[in-house]
Order: sequence, then C-alpha cells, then structure tokens
Amino acid sequence: MANIPSFRDIESAHQRIKSYIHNTPVLTSASINKLVESDLYFKCENFQKAGAFKFRGATNAVQSLSEEMANKGVATHSSGNHAGALALAARTRNIKCHIVMPENALPVKVNAVRSYGANITFCKPTLKSREQILEKVVNKTGAVFIHPYNCFEVICGQGTAAKELIEKVHSLQYILTPVGGGGMLSGTAIAVKAMNPRISVIGAEPLNADDAYRSFKSGRLIPSENPLTIADGLLTSLGDHTFEIIRKKVDDIITVKEKSIIQAMRIIWERMKIIIEPSASVAMAAILENKKMFRNKKTGIIITGGNVDLNNLPFA
Amino acid sequence: MANIPSFRDIESAHQRIKSYIHNTPVLTSASINKLVESDLYFKCENFQKAGAFKFRGATNAVQSLSEEMANKGVATHSSGNHAGALALAARTRNIKCHIVMPENALPVKVNAVRSYGANITFCKPTLKSREQILEKVVNKTGAVFIHPYNCFEVICGQGTAAKELIEKVHSLQYILTPVGGGGMLSGTAIAVKAMNPRISVIGAEPLNADDAYRSFKSGRLIPSENPLTIADGLLTSLGDHTFEIIRKKVDDIITVKEKSIIQAMRIIWERMKIIIEPSASVAMAAILENKKMFRNKKTGIIITGGNVDLNNLPFA
Repeated sequence: MANIPSFRDIESAHQRIKSYIHNTPVLTSASINKLVESDLYFKCENFQKAGAFKFRGATNAVQSLSEEMANKGVATHSSGNHAGALALAARTRNIKCHIVMPENALPVKVNAVRSYGANITFCKPTLKSREQILEKVVNKTGAVFIHPYNCFEVICGQGTAAKELIEKVHSLQYILTPVGGGGMLSGTAIAVKAMNPRISVIGAEPLNADDAYRSFKSGRLIPSENPLTIADGLLTSLGDHTFEIIRKKVDDIITVKEKSIIQAMRIIWERMKIIIEPSASVAMAAILENKKMFRNKKTGIIITGGNVDLNNLPFA
Repeated sequence: MANIPSFRDIESAHQRIKSYIHNTPVLTSASINKLVESDLYFKCENFQKAGAFKFRGATNAVQSLSEEMANKGVATHSSGNHAGALALAARTRNIKCHIVMPENALPVKVNAVRSYGANITFCKPTLKSREQILEKVVNKTGAVFIHPYNCFEVICGQGTAAKELIEKVHSLQYILTPVGGGGMLSGTAIAVKAMNPRISVIGAEPLNADDAYRSFKSGRLIPSENPLTIADGLLTSLGDHTFEIIRKKVDDIITVKEKSIIQAMRIIWERMKIIIEPSASVAMAAILENKKMFRNKKTGIIITGGNVDLNNLPFA
C-alpha cells in the first residue's frame, strides 16, 4: 500500500459505493441500555448486502478497477464473509470472480458464494494451501487479487460504516468494532479521527485470538498462533498496513472471553430480535466485561455481520 | 362486546397508545422477493415492546380503563405473549397485574412476566384450570379481566399495526396475518376494509390448528380439538366476537403445513437477519405454499412476534 488512506479517500469511496450498498439502520434497545446502564447505538451491518460490512470494501475495490483491470476478473481466498461479498460485488459489475475456499468451509457459505455466480476452487484448510492455490488461480486467469483487509480500497470501503454512524448519531464518546485482520478497525479509526477526534476508537478482540491486542501493546506485529474462538471471522491476524493505521489512530484494544461473546450474542438476539454472528458480538462482549468504563457513556457499536449456521448455534 | 369496533375506534385506540408503542419498521428483502417472485412488505411487530403485537391491544385495554377501574388492577391467563404484554402495559400505567400461567410455561416467558413486575399464579395446563384459577384471582383481587383477543379494546389495539402499514406502503393488493384467537386478524380486517377495500385480507393458519379455517368455511364457530403445532401462539380458537368480524370482513383463510412454517421461519432468519417466532412465520408459509397466487403482487405481511426459546429451535 503506497500510503495510508485519508478521510478524503473514505469520502470518495462512499460516493463510489453509495448506490450499491445499504445505508444500514442504527438501532437502540431500551432494555439493553437499562441492563448495562449505558447509551448504545448499534450500526447494523448484519443487514448489509451479503450479510456483512465486507460488501462495502469489496464493492469499493471492484468499482475502483479500471475497465481493463475489471475485465480480468477478481480473485481472493476466504472461507467467510469476504468471499460472499466479493462474489456479489463482482456480479454487480458483471465481471468474473474466483474464490479459493478451504474444503471444510461451511456448506451455507459455499452455497452463498456459488449463488452469486463465482467460480470456487477448494484448497486444504491451511493458510499455505490457500495462498498456493490462489496463486495458481491468479496465474491461470489473470484475475486481480483483492485482499480481504490489507488493501487500500478495502480499508476505505470499511470506513464508510463509521462515517454513516457519525452522520446519524451525534456526540458519541466511544466507537467499538471487532478486530480480526483489522480492515474494519483501521477504516473506522481513519473516519472517526477525521470527523470527531474526541471519540475514542476501541477494538474488541477474542482473548483466544489476541494478536491485535499483543501487537498493539508491544508495538510490533505479532501474528496469531492457532487461534481458537467461536468468532470465526476474527481468526485472521493484522496485516502490515492495517497494523500501521491501528497503531497510529486507535485508542485501545480490549480482549474478551468466549463466554462473554456468547452471552453478548444471546442478549442481542433475545432483546433486539436481530441475528448477529459471533464475531459481531465481540464489541458488545467488551461492554459487558467493562461496564464501569462505558457507564452513562454514549457508545457506537459496529455490528459487523449476521451470517450464522442455524444448524450449529452456541445456545444450549 | 356490545358492538363491533369501527375504524374510528381503531383510530381512537391509535391516538391513545401512540406514545407507548413503537411504530415498528416495515422491512423488505430483495432476496426473498426474488425467491418468491413477489413484492413483500414485512411489518415487524417482533420489534414491538415485549416482542409482539400483543402490546398494542394490552396497552389500549389498560389505558382505556377509568381511574377507578385501573386501580383494581388487571388480570389474565396466558402462557405467551399476551401475558408479557399485559404485564408491561400495566407497569407502564403503574397498576397491579395478575397473570395465571400454566405450570409448564417456558421459563423464559415466566421470567419476562416476572421482570415486568406482575404477580404470577400457576395452574394446570388445561383451559379449565386456567379459567378456574383466574376466576379465583379475579374474585380475590377485584382485578379487571383483559381477554387476550375476544375483547373490544384489544381488537382495536391490534388493528393499529395494519393501519401503520397502510399509511407507510401504498397500493398493497393483499395483507396477510396469522390467525389464532383472531384478535390481530379481526382488527386488521376492520382497518384495511375502511382504509382501502380493494386490499384482500387473508388469515394464515397452521393446518394442525385449523379451527378458524373450518369455522370460516362452514359459517359456524368450531373450536380446535387438541391442536398441535410449532406455532405455539396459534393454539387458541376464535372467540365469538372475533369470529363475527372475520366472517364479515376477511376475504379468505389459508392453512399451511408444519414443514412450511419452519421453512418460512428459516428463510426469514437467514435472509433478513431478524428473529421471528414460529407463529409469526405462518403468513410467509402461506406465500411459499401459494406462490402463483401472490406472484408479482404487492403483499403486506404482519410479522406478529419474535419471542423464541433459543435453547429449543426447530432448525437441525
């Protein structure tokens, strides 16, 4: 990445993608506010197209390509929301899309990618196999690789969710997002610090996949080793670009226990009647574990996605 | 019931309850519209206070009481959404509420009623026991019995949901609601036929609890015998008042299979990322079973509630 995106880049991205994305609703819950004695605003990207904020970054990347590049098609490796998002973004521009997915990917996610018309190549469920197979696919097809998070256009697209939130809800004191690869957190931090630097930007991360926390605290990029969390969208480690932005712009990173993630998910399902995925519950889990910190504060939370396997829910 | 409510009564109810209820959102889904080749508008009462449309009728009943009557408190028997709705409506007016619940009611529903501060008396899980115990409670406390559906004020309150839907979405051709005791369906029919008589009003009912269908077709009130359906909110039979209204104002009643109810629920959970209960899925099930009838039509659907037991979901 030649340079760090500026807020102006996020504004341009927003103009570019506006007609393709949903400006998702911001919901509140009197019952949850009472429970945590706080004032929470949920930016509901679970209602975004393809069910997650990833459609913002993927659309910005796809729509930023020149006609010549776009005609080559796009490619990525992903078992999750970036795969579906890129497939739908590519279909929207009517270009080819190649997705490398691990052979153990959930059928529901494979079917989603397939339903958007992408070509799927399966690989072993290791990062090495993913990258090798992707390289083959790219070499064979000439498609443009769209990285799921460590990519200028993707980061700009993800930053538009926080921009919409701040445009709708004024005088927030905190904005929380989950952090996996860091695309959402870095885009959010750029947007927030340009629009209102008094808002603290906080990343929330599973304790069991705490590479961002350890990297942020130590000042050097430490990848995850065998992360194991129910928040399957947050298994990835920060990239060099997202880490650079997060170091400079993010105020803090909070880690949360698995139990709190499931508890947060259950509270939001039961009280708000909306479906959010475990990865999207991590920011609410941070509120539950740090009630004093957020008490009587006005806090925005990015609900990052709602793609769950209904046959395999963590409630019992 | 001295007389059948008029649309004017529903308008008065709406004025009375407006500041207590949510004017719930109307959602659409491009993906579901594509699936059924139709144009569907979901009025989301799963987002209503206490998680179901029942709060409209209960609030209208509670707020209609004179000061003197209100001071006696209110009472009902219910294992479900009417119990929670009445308890919250009573708390809102700061009056006493007595709920008779079957001893096998779901803990999650018992807890909801308790959290709203109502007194609970348990009974055997039969209609006879419910009515006997309720009579005792009413005799002892002097509380006013608020029937869950066969009641003027309750019917007026329920009719306000369709009124809001028609105010927001123009030129609908159909409006579908589930039918159990008939409070929602009768209130809807009164509102719709006054506001736009060209809209067909259709009740959707589980085949396994088809008393409304059989009563409607035969012209005489036939109560359910041992109904058994996953749509636990639709086990009740029509009352004499709701039947009278439904006979006169409703265009048709459609029955649906259990399998279709679960399929409809799953489609809405997966594609719209909202939590709806089985009873609320019955209208969508009617669309799935009758695609031709609704093809390319503009149809409103009342999503009646979102109270589910997350430990006992029908997906597997």
